[in-house]
Amino acid sequence: MPLLVMKFGGTSVADLARIRNAAEKVRAEVARGYDVIVIVSAMSGKTNELVGWVNETSPLYDAREYDAVVSSGENVTAGLMALTLQEMDVPARSWQGWQVPIQTTSAHGAARFVDIPRANIDAKFAEGFKVAVIAGFQGVSAEGRITTLGRGGSDTTAVAFAAAFGAERCDIYTDVDGIYTTDPRITSKARKLEKISFEEMLELASLGAKVLQTRSVELAMRYKVRLRVLSSFDETDETSGTLVCDEDEIMESKVVSGVAYSREEAKLTLVTVEDRPGIAAAIFGPLSEAGVNVDMIVQNISEKSQDHDKPVTDMTFSCPVDQVARARKALETARDAGQISYETLQVDTDAAKVSVVGIGMRSHAGVAARMFRALAEEGVNIKVIATSEIKISVLIDRKYMELAVQALHDAFELDKAG
Amino acid sequence: MPLLVMKFGGTSVADLARIRNAAEKVRAEVARGYDVIVIVSAMSGKTNELVGWVNETSPLYDAREYDAVVSSGENVTAGLMALTLQEMDVPARSWQGWQVPIQTTSAHGAARFVDIPRANIDAKFAEGFKVAVIAGFQGVSAEGRITTLGRGGSDTTAVAFAAAFGAERCDIYTDVDGIYTTDPRITSKARKLEKISFEEMLELASLGAKVLQTRSVELAMRYKVRLRVLSSFDETDETSGTLVCDEDEIMESKVVSGVAYSREEAKLTLVTVEDRPGIAAAIFGPLSEAGVNVDMIVQNISEKSQDHDKPVTDMTFSCPVDQVARARKALETARDAGQISYETLQVDTDAAKVSVVGIGMRSHAGVAARMFRALAEEGVNIKVIATSEIKISVLIDRKYMELAVQALHDAFELDKAG
Repeated sequence: MPLLVMKFGGTSVADLARIRNAAEKVRAEVARGYDVIVIVSAMSGKTNELVGWVNETSPLYDAREYDAVVSSGENVTAGLMALTLQEMDVPARSWQGWQVPIQTTSAHGAARFVDIPRANIDAKFAEGFKVAVIAGFQGVSAEGRITTLGRGGSDTTAVAFAAAFGAERCDIYTDVDGIYTTDPRITSKARKLEKISFEEMLELASLGAKVLQTRSVELAMRYKVRLRVLSSFDETDETSGTLVCDEDEIMESKVVSGVAYSREEAKLTLVTVEDRPGIAAAIFGPLSEAGVNVDMIVQNISEKSQDHDKPVTDMTFSCPVDQVARARKALETARDAGQISYETLQVDTDAAKVSVVGIGMRSHAGVAARMFRALAEEGVNIKVIATSEIKISVLIDRKYMELAVQALHDAFELDKAG
Repeated sequence: MPLLVMKFGGTSVADLARIRNAAEKVRAEVARGYDVIVIVSAMSGKTNELVGWVNETSPLYDAREYDAVVSSGENVTAGLMALTLQEMDVPARSWQGWQVPIQTTSAHGAARFVDIPRANIDAKFAEGFKVAVIAGFQGVSAEGRITTLGRGGSDTTAVAFAAAFGAERCDIYTDVDGIYTTDPRITSKARKLEKISFEEMLELASLGAKVLQTRSVELAMRYKVRLRVLSSFDETDETSGTLVCDEDEIMESKVVSGVAYSREEAKLTLVTVEDRPGIAAAIFGPLSEAGVNVDMIVQNISEKSQDHDKPVTDMTFSCPVDQVARARKALETARDAGQISYETLQVDTDAAKVSVVGIGMRSHAGVAARMFRALAEEGVNIKVIATSEIKISVLIDRKYMELAVQALHDAFELDKAG
């Protein structure tokens, strides 16, 4: 029997009516001849409520108890979904993590899968059950404690089950109807993609597209799980949404597939840093330990080099605005401890990041030039540039962000299909 | 190390402040040198919310899914209680039913304990943990499905743990400060009992005192678990509340310990029933199958016997008012099927039951006479009488209920201590 994994996020199971709506979609796939594994999140708002209680009770909480508490929201949805399917005469039962058992590491709050044994669920399918409803986001450690995978973990659960059970596809039902060339709120020319490669999706996810959790895309890429992102609120069929798949499945791809952005970026520059081997490690080690997500890094020869005995340099990096205070403290502590030296720390909290992403870049030259020209024509000044094999990112003034996204969307003709 | 079981009901853990308050009481017992097993209910209102969702989703629900959903409330409280204790530097961890594992029958929604193995929890106590927080009301079946014990099941969980671990005492923290000679809302002369025997408590519980679940008292009696009922909202010490214990522990006991009542009773009389062997079974069998809780039963020779060829009788019984419709239907169905015959069914939905309870009755004559005289002096007419070894119950007009309770409380001098 061919098998599908279907995952419903919090807004898709927010109340009993929406759970029924989701169950209808499951029933339709069963009617098409599939066995189905359904992964459910907690009803929207529930996990936040539980997390709030834990934080209020114990700011430095025992992560094992945190996991025991916050995992309960998914258990409720799983039972309600199984009951809803039963009411539709679809033979279904719910599974909590420990019942499968979904074996994970003991890294509470950020656990990783160790194994998903198929025997228990396969036995139920063999008995005639058509649907296994799995509480997402959770597992059980070797010590028998409940673990969670971190926020967004239900996507990862879905992909892991699709890999373990050799699913034909993993459908992620959410509150958007697919992956767009860019955010439709920024330009009405944004176009829904029919397909996108794992690599591109990874760049888009980590750049802030927020539709799929990064780890779930990594896992899907590793195990070649075909992911489909589609809306639980629309009528859907086999062609709905966006398929995230291996690039081999994508016949013809444009040079650039999408324009991503991140609005709240800061640019920090350490002025007049001693330029010696190991200086980058001395700077970015403490930042990493402080939990600062350093993104783009640029090192320039300082104009002041001539004024110093030893060679000096300026070191610039970007990080999310809300991490600036932490970054500043980590750098000052390192300076006070004599690990690094710098004259001043310049902080610009008025930046945004805009990126173009596309696997086509690998074989096409001139993408960067076209990008910089498009921005220049709009008078957008570039503060920092960073590139990878399939992505070019620039840091710009925040006030130009929308303009830049629109200009790049036009420049790469993303409103036109294939 | 001596061990205590402490159970906190829904109102005692209704929010984070109350959970802290409950945790303070646990900490005090740990400071006195006890290891403690804490049993928690769901935060008040949570179980009703979950039950409501299940009923709305599936009126004839799969009880296994019901249990999976409704058990989640206790899991939340258990984790929050463990975290709260940890914040107070009391080494604690939470246990869900399957983690102990609390082994039960597969009677979902009304499961019974099969075994509570001590090994896992004992190992934690040996490691230096002082408190094991157990999610009440739940267990796991041999099939690995989550079970629940039925409403009020957390009391039963507490007693079962006290029996399994040989606890010195099982303290039931609730929203009243003990067991009273009668309901203080009916007479201000009601007095809190220092001690009461299991047998008396059983009669009081089943008569509507509602403080302790009947099954938990039965279990406590069988395993000689000393139960203490006390308020989680008051300052408490070792003398607070009421101790429910073996009658051997009660030095001197009054003839009557308490007056119980049940307000919404109905009296049903089947007039002119054929008086033959097996007629009682023919009447009460169908009532039992229909889920009618028949309480008092009286059979009289009918005045009309002389008018009939065969001997006839009148059969009177009582049941809760809200079961009258079901009772009527069951009786009519049995008559239509030819299993029983009667001329008319008289229904009086205006009744209440008042009972006096006391182990002293066993050795004292004249209790019934004193009771009937007290009621007669107030002009209260008795409809039905039923007696057991330690209880006398009368069915009366509902409008006299408060008056009857007050009169009996006075007649047996229950306002005066032992």
